This record gives sequence, C-alpha cells and structure tokens, in this order.
Amino acid sequence: MSRKQKAIRTDIGWSDAESITLFGKDFPNQILGHLNLGDMGFLELTGRFPTPGESKMFNAMVVTLVEHGITPSALVARMTYLGAPESLQGAVAAGLNGLGTVFVGSIEGAAKLLYEAMPSKEPAQDLQSLAAKVVSDHRDRGSILPGIGHPFHKPIDPRTPRLQQIAAETGFDGPYFQLMDAIAKHATLANGKSMPMNATGAIGALCCEMGFDWKICRGLGVMARAVGLVGHILEESRNPMAQEVWHRIEEVATEHMRPTGKEDSK
Amino acid sequence: MSRKQKAIRTDIGWSDAESITLFGKDFPNQILGHLNLGDMGFLELTGRFPTPGESKMFNAMVVTLVEHGITPSALVARMTYLGAPESLQGAVAAGLNGLGTVFVGSIEGAAKLLYEAMPSKEPAQDLQSLAAKVVSDHRDRGSILPGIGHPFHKPIDPRTPRLQQIAAETGFDGPYFQLMDAIAKHATLANGKSMPMNATGAIGALCCEMGFDWKICRGLGVMARAVGLVGHILEESRNPMAQEVWHRIEEVATEHMRPTGKEDSK
Amino acid sequence: MSRKQKAIRTDIGWSDAESITLFGKDFPNQILGHLNLGDMGFLELTGRFPTPGESKMFNAMVVTLVEHGITPSALVARMTYLGAPESLQGAVAAGLNGLGTVFVGSIEGAAKLLYEAMPSKEPAQDLQSLAAKVVSDHRDRGSILPGIGHPFHKPIDPRTPRLQQIAAETGFDGPYFQLMDAIAKHATLANGKSMPMNATGAIGALCCEMGFDWKICRGLGVMARAVGLVGHILEESRNPMAQEVWHRIEEVATEHMRPTGKEDSK
Amino acid sequence: MSRKQKAIRTDIGWSDAESITLFGKDFPNQILGHLNLGDMGFLELTGRFPTPGESKMFNAMVVTLVEHGITPSALVARMTYLGAPESLQGAVAAGLNGLGTVFVGSIEGAAKLLYEAMPSKEPAQDLQSLAAKVVSDHRDRGSILPGIGHPFHKPIDPRTPRLQQIAAETGFDGPYFQLMDAIAKHATLANGKSMPMNATGAIGALCCEMGFDWKICRGLGVMARAVGLVGHILEESRNPMAQEVWHRIEEVATEHMRPTGKEDSK
Repeated sequence: MSRKQKAIRTDIGWSDAESITLFGKDFPNQILGHLNLGDMGFLELTGRFPTPGESKMFNAMVVTLVEHGITPSALVARMTYLGAPESLQGAVAAGLNGLGTVFVGSIEGAAKLLYEAMPSKEPAQDLQSLAAKVVSDHRDRGSILPGIGHPFHKPIDPRTPRLQQIAAETGFDGPYFQLMDAIAKHATLANGKSMPMNATGAIGALCCEMGFDWKICRGLGVMARAVGLVGHILEESRNPMAQEVWHRIEEVATEHMRPTGKEDSK
Repeated sequence: MSRKQKAIRTDIGWSDAESITLFGKDFPNQILGHLNLGDMGFLELTGRFPTPGESKMFNAMVVTLVEHGITPSALVARMTYLGAPESLQGAVAAGLNGLGTVFVGSIEGAAKLLYEAMPSKEPAQDLQSLAAKVVSDHRDRGSILPGIGHPFHKPIDPRTPRLQQIAAETGFDGPYFQLMDAIAKHATLANGKSMPMNATGAIGALCCEMGFDWKICRGLGVMARAVGLVGHILEESRNPMAQEVWHRIEEVATEHMRPTGKEDSK
Repeated sequence: MSRKQKAIRTDIGWSDAESITLFGKDFPNQILGHLNLGDMGFLELTGRFPTPGESKMFNAMVVTLVEHGITPSALVARMTYLGAPESLQGAVAAGLNGLGTVFVGSIEGAAKLLYEAMPSKEPAQDLQSLAAKVVSDHRDRGSILPGIGHPFHKPIDPRTPRLQQIAAETGFDGPYFQLMDAIAKHATLANGKSMPMNATGAIGALCCEMGFDWKICRGLGVMARAVGLVGHILEESRNPMAQEVWHRIEEVATEHMRPTGKEDSK
Repeated sequence: MSRKQKAIRTDIGWSDAESITLFGKDFPNQILGHLNLGDMGFLELTGRFPTPGESKMFNAMVVTLVEHGITPSALVARMTYLGAPESLQGAVAAGLNGLGTVFVGSIEGAAKLLYEAMPSKEPAQDLQSLAAKVVSDHRDRGSILPGIGHPFHKPIDPRTPRLQQIAAETGFDGPYFQLMDAIAKHATLANGKSMPMNATGAIGALCCEMGFDWKICRGLGVMARAVGLVGHILEESRNPMAQEVWHRIEEVATEHMRPTGKEDSK
C-alpha cells in the first residue's frame, strides 16, 4: 500500500494477564476504593487524581446534572424501554441523544463565551469592563447570553447560590466565575429585569476554572444524565407511564382527522 | 374517548420557581455538595442516601466499570465522533449501544443466577451445596457460568481480590458474595482448571448483596461507561485514531477484491 | 505479537479512483437508476438483484413497516429532536432504539416459529397437522403466538389481505405463508375467538418464503422505520408537539407531589 | 394549571379497527403494493405520491447513499453488534449516529449554499455570475465548497455523470443543478485544478430542485444508510470482523505502554 500510515495510539491504559494500568496508575490498588465515580470522571478529563477540593467541586458540578425529573430525555428513555425492555443500554443511549445544543449546550456556550472574553486566567483583569462588553456585544447581535436567566426558576436558580458556596469553599470562585457573575449583573442592568446566573452558567464557569476545553463541557452533562436515566428506567419498570403517554398523545394528536364518534384504535 | 386512562406518575422529583425536590430531599441544600456522583447513582437505584459503607462499595463497583481501554464501545464512540464531532452526546450514545449481553450482560447474568439459586438472603443456608448444584446444573446444560473465569486475566482477575477486600471492609461480603465465591471454587474443581470469580461476577454478587433487581444491574455498567467514553472522546479530539483505523481496516478488508496493483481509493 | 490474527474481510464492495463496485456490480451503471430503495435493501440481504416479483413483494413488506403514525418511536425521535435539532441523525437513531422485542420483534418471532415448525420448504407437508401442533404446543406452554391476533385491528388487520393478494400475484404465498394462515385458523378454533394473521405475521412468513435468516427479519422493520422517522422529524420541525408533550406529562406526573395550589415550574 | 396549553397535532395518519389512513390515503389499498420504499420516503417528505420521474430521481438519490462499503458507520454498527447481537436495532442506531456534519452534512451544505445563492428558482437568472460570486466569496472566507471535489474519486466522482443523466431524463437538471455545475466549473478555474461536482453535491442540488428544506436533506442519507447498515450486520453475523478489528487496534494502540516482551492481554 502506498498510503502513508499514521500512528494509532492511546495513552489511557493497558492491561496484561496480571495487571491493569489506567492513566499510569495501578488500577486495582491505586484507583479502586480510592476514587468515587465523579473522581473517575475528573481523572478521565485531566489524566490526574483530583485534590479534595477538586473532588468536591467536580462532583457537585456533575451531581447537578444527573436528575431533572420528567425531561424529554427521561421520556425518551422510558418510551424506548417500552419497545425494547431487553436493551436497557439502548434506552439510556436514546435518552442521551437529545442532550444537544438546546439543553446541555448552554454549559459549553457559557464556557466558550468566557474563554473568548478572557483567553488567559489573569486575576488582574477588569472583569466589569469585560462583562459590560460581553453584554453589549450580545445585545448588538441580538443573541442570547448562555447560562444567564431561567424560564422557570425565578428570581434565582436555587442551585446557583449553592454551587457558588461550594466554589468559595474549594477556591474555584476565581476570575471566570466572577466574570460570569459580572455578566449576569450587567445583563440585569441592561435588560431592566433580573437576569441571574443559572446552574449551567455556573457549571460552564467552573469548567473554565478547571481548565477544561469548552468542547468537552457537554460531556459533564452526558456522563451525569446517564446516571439519572438508569433511575428513570428503574421507575418505569416498576410503575410504567410510557404506554399511557403514547396512547394519550396519539389520541389527542389524531383527533382532528377522525370521523365524529370514531374512537382511537389504540 | 372511552379508553380507560391509567395514571401517569413519577415519584423521582418536582420543582417550582424557588425549589427543587428529588427523592423527597431539598436538592440544592441536602444533596448538592453532600453526595458524589456514585452516591447519586445509589440514590437513583434505591431512593435513599447511602451509608458510608454503601457509598464506598457502590462507588468501587461502578468505578470498576468506567474504563477498560480500547474496547469495542470506545472504538464506536471514537468513530462516531469522527463523523459527527458536533454531537458528543451521539458518540457516547453510540458507544453505550454495544453494552449488551456479551460484555456487560455477565453482571446481570451472575446476579440472576445467584437470586435463582438463593431467593432469600438467609445466612444459615448451605452455600457449598447450593454452589455444587449450580455448577453441576450448568455443566449438565452445557451452559457457561456468568462471572466466572476470564479470557485474559489469569490466573485471577486482579480486580476481584480488591473488590473482595472492600466488600469485607464494608460488610458486603455476605451470603451472595460467598455463594459466588463457592461457585467459582466448585467450578474450578469440576473443570480441573482455575475458574476464579471475575470482576463482573463480583459486581453481580455485590448487586445481590445490595438488593438490586437483576434487571437493573446492567445499568451500573451503562452509567459507568458513559463516564469513560467521554474520556475517550477527549483523547480522540486531541490525538485521533478513528480515521486511521477506518482506512487500515477498509484496505485490508477489501484487498481480495482489488485487481492486482490497484490501490485503495481511500 | 503471538496472537494468531484472523482475517478481516468484506465482500460487499470496494472502490478506486474511477469505479465503485457493490455486490460485484458496477454501481453507477448497473445499480443507480435501475434499483429502487427497497430493491437495494433486497440486494443487501441476498447479494443479488430481485426479480420483478421479488421487488414488488419485498417493497410491499418494508413499505408496511415505514409509518404507523404517533408511535413510541416517533415520539422518541421528536423529543430527541427538541433537544438536539442540529442532529437529525441522532433523533432517528434514538427512535430506532425502541424497535426491540415488543414491537418489531414479532416479525422475527413469527419467522422463527415457522422455520422451527417446518425446517425445509417442502410443499408436500401436511400443513394442517403442523399448524395444529404449533397451536397446541403454544397453549401447553402458555406462550403467545407471534404474528397472530391484533389488539386494535379487528376483526382483521386490514394490511393482511392486501399482503396476501400481493403474495398470490408474485408467487410468495407458498408453504410458509400457508402454514402461518393455517396456524391462525387453528388458533381461532382453539381459542373460540377470531385470531387472524396480522401484518407482522404475514411479513414474518414472507421472510421465510424469501429464505431470510430469522435473525435479520427485524432489520426490515429497522430500515423501513428510519424512512418514516425522517417524516416525523420534518413534521415536528414545522408543527412541533414535543415541547407540549413534555410539559403536559411533567405536570400530570408530578401533580401528586406538589403542595396544593403550587403550579408546575415548567 | 394556569399554563396555556398548545395544540398537539399530527397530520401524518390515523387508524381505527378496520382502516389505516396515511397522508390522506387508504394505506392498504392505495399505498401498499403501489409505492416502493423510496416512493414512501418521497411521500413522507412531500405528503404526496411521486410522479414516475420523481420516483426514478428520488430513488436514485437515496440509492446512492445506501452503501459505501467499510465506512466508519459500518464499523460502528458491526462493533456494536459484537457486544449486543440481540439488539440489531441498536447496532443500526449506533451506526447512524455518525452521519453528522463531516460525511452526510455536505448534502445539506450544498443545498443551503444553493438556496442562499438563488432563493427563488427563476430560470432566467445569470447562473454564471451567481456561481462566480459563490466561488469568490468562499475563497475570500477561506471556506470549503460543499459538494465539490472528492478526496479519492478523481478526476470525477463516477456517480455524478450517472445522476446527471437521470436528472436530464426526468427533468430535474434545472437551475439549481445547473448552478451547482457552474460552481464546480468556476471552482476548477479559480483553483487551477479539477474540482468537479461530487455525488453529495449533485444530491444537494437535486434536493433543491425537489424543493426540500435544506435542514431535512441529511435525512436522505439517514434513511438510505439504515438500509445499508442492515446489510453490514448480516455480513458481520456470517463472516465477522469486529472482534479481530478490536484486538488488532487495541494491540497497536497500547504497544508503546507495554514493557518490552509483554504481550497484549486480549
């Protein structure tokens, strides 16, 4: 073959008959029993163990994203399980497919915005000026500020002050977190109504504090929601709603096409 | 409509403008900052907070399943990301779809086998007799014992003694764990070669110790692997292999059809 | 490496700078413009072009499975699109994940049952005796006959007589189709109520007539439904229902947990 | 509840005990046996039956996208099937997840570009000027022209002249198709090397000729590839490659981490 081959290489880990090495550590002895599931996620994203503060903060970030009740992704997992109860993994996979730009995307949107506004994490920068510029630029373009405001949680997203508190305890309330906060305050002034930082905005800012590439921030939502969707499938297996949801929606959605008096076939 | 409607009901949680309640707890104040991601998985599966021992054991179980290096599911996530880098969630979803009966299924297979052999967790049962019967029944049917033996890790799966140690520390080395161990010993005797408990066998037994329905055991693998697949996508974004894997495999797989001297088009 | 390598080989096709060969045919000149999409599916499953009769029958089989209105899989695709409108492929993928044992599985169930009852397609066999035995075996085991009866379409599934007519026209109403018909008649007698062949039973029998492996029969449903789900996403993009479905279900599912008078947060 | 409910409505179809209506047609009698699978796709996208010319053209467009041999999505489907052979639908779903911006996205890219360059299908427009402007605008922005050029098929994509021929026969070689052709010619001039229209460019132009929304164009690739992936899973079930691919890649990817002489554990 004349095509020049490129290298195929992973640095995540390898194993042989007696040992398993992950990120340079002896998995059974150095990782197992020492790291919790969130710490393992931190290890996957950074290649190193979290400090106690990083562990607390990162676990809080992902725990925030595990469970939001009856969401579209939870309904998707439940309705997929209705048709393929033998494939729990397929139901979770289906549920994850909806974690795109509309819901989880605001985390990466917030992180991207913060990195663009402040490429280096210099504490001496004038955060108020940067924030004012971000807000006015968005107003000029007519675009929405990711991570700011919330359709239902008013006046404030109840998760934000708690995340802020944990950030303060663990030292993650640095320049990016403060910039996000300043953006929220400037947006509130500019809009003449309360525009507080929401949970995805806080998490996006904390991703910047941790130095994560903005392209991977959606991954925090994906790993977290997989945990929550297993819980929804468990509840569905015990107290199902998917079939009734299907029948109710099918009835109402097709009612206008039915001859008067004709009942639904389902 | 004459169809009798059934109830549509969840007990997982609800929220209003100021509050978020999950499993009866005030989410921001009672859960956030208090539970790690594995604990949150335990909460999803049981509806209650883990004790410190349960937290340690459950986190160890799921951490075992996060990362197995270059597996089929990791390759699937990486090759999906190659075509749709804008949809990280789709790459993880694709990777999870392969967690079926062949790989992760042995956890639920082991749990089902243990529950069937010992429907109630009575410590006074004769575990040796139960184990001998399980082994001989499987030999009679010519079926494989799930959770026993390992194709590569020999003589023992290095994760098993560590999981056993944590089980002993946390009190989860009860009748189901002992029964699994006894089955491994009887299988070794019956087969005349070492047939040790592997990691999925240990985790299946621990699922029984924790009282999980065997049908949800696969969920531990699914929630864990989602964490690991995000790590693989991160590495792929930095040091890609998917395109080279595709080209190499395409070349070798189609070589026999090409006229001599014809190079691959890719 | 000491591991013995196995061959990696496909016989589906290859290409070079000037040509594309699929199943031994010159794709641009022999396939493109000559085969329709269903014929292409037949080619994938058999490696050869369909005769005109095979083309008509196979297309009718898959066309039957394209569109069933507001099904769980259609709702799944729509709700996934709500969260990730930039990933049409993820919405279709999510919808396909539910095509498991409960819905599409009855095609392969019927095919498997027919192959087991009549391993070779000998026209001289006593189909009535075979059918009577299948029905009584299922009654003895208390198991449901796949492809027989329908929860809504009564007295008969309106698709069955049409499929039967096309089968007669194209010569696919052979022993397997007749056996399925005989099973339906014996089931009706044994149950004392009408138990007609339904559409999935007819398609399962036709898969046997065409000699398809029963394990691949589900694939007809999968390839067909992908076509239909694109149509649902198109309608969702123009006249959306997913967000309203979500909000209505979330409201009703959480109502019992809310303090009196508290409105839903969504 | 005080939330104002919105309508939930589909116009695709409904059924009752005796009848099935899709897009206003009696499904068993007017559709089944009359439309092929591609025609059914056309019906889903337009709400009406295709003319004979539309049927020929649309089927050619989707048939072009069914099978491209050992692609990343085919490898994904095969490796997913390795882990979950009981879930054929999950393997196809996983394979579809990779049909994002990189591969299938160029169809919608080409369609979007053409609609933006020529919002209305007026035959009297100066296509050469429009094409020159498109090419120079892309050169100025340094962006790639979707649907133009091909990494392997040189000097021309062998599918393009055949699609062009069918377009001429069926009257779909109108302004959008001609504009795409003119863009290719101007790109060739501007780049000083051959930049012909490729198959996705031709299909994108044909989507415009048919009046499809550019956002749904990716759907043609998705419905088509689902058909092809079933074929790959069938071949994988008979002549598997997924396990060998996994082992070879795992070996080479981890080789640099292994102590000298250590064999891979897989």
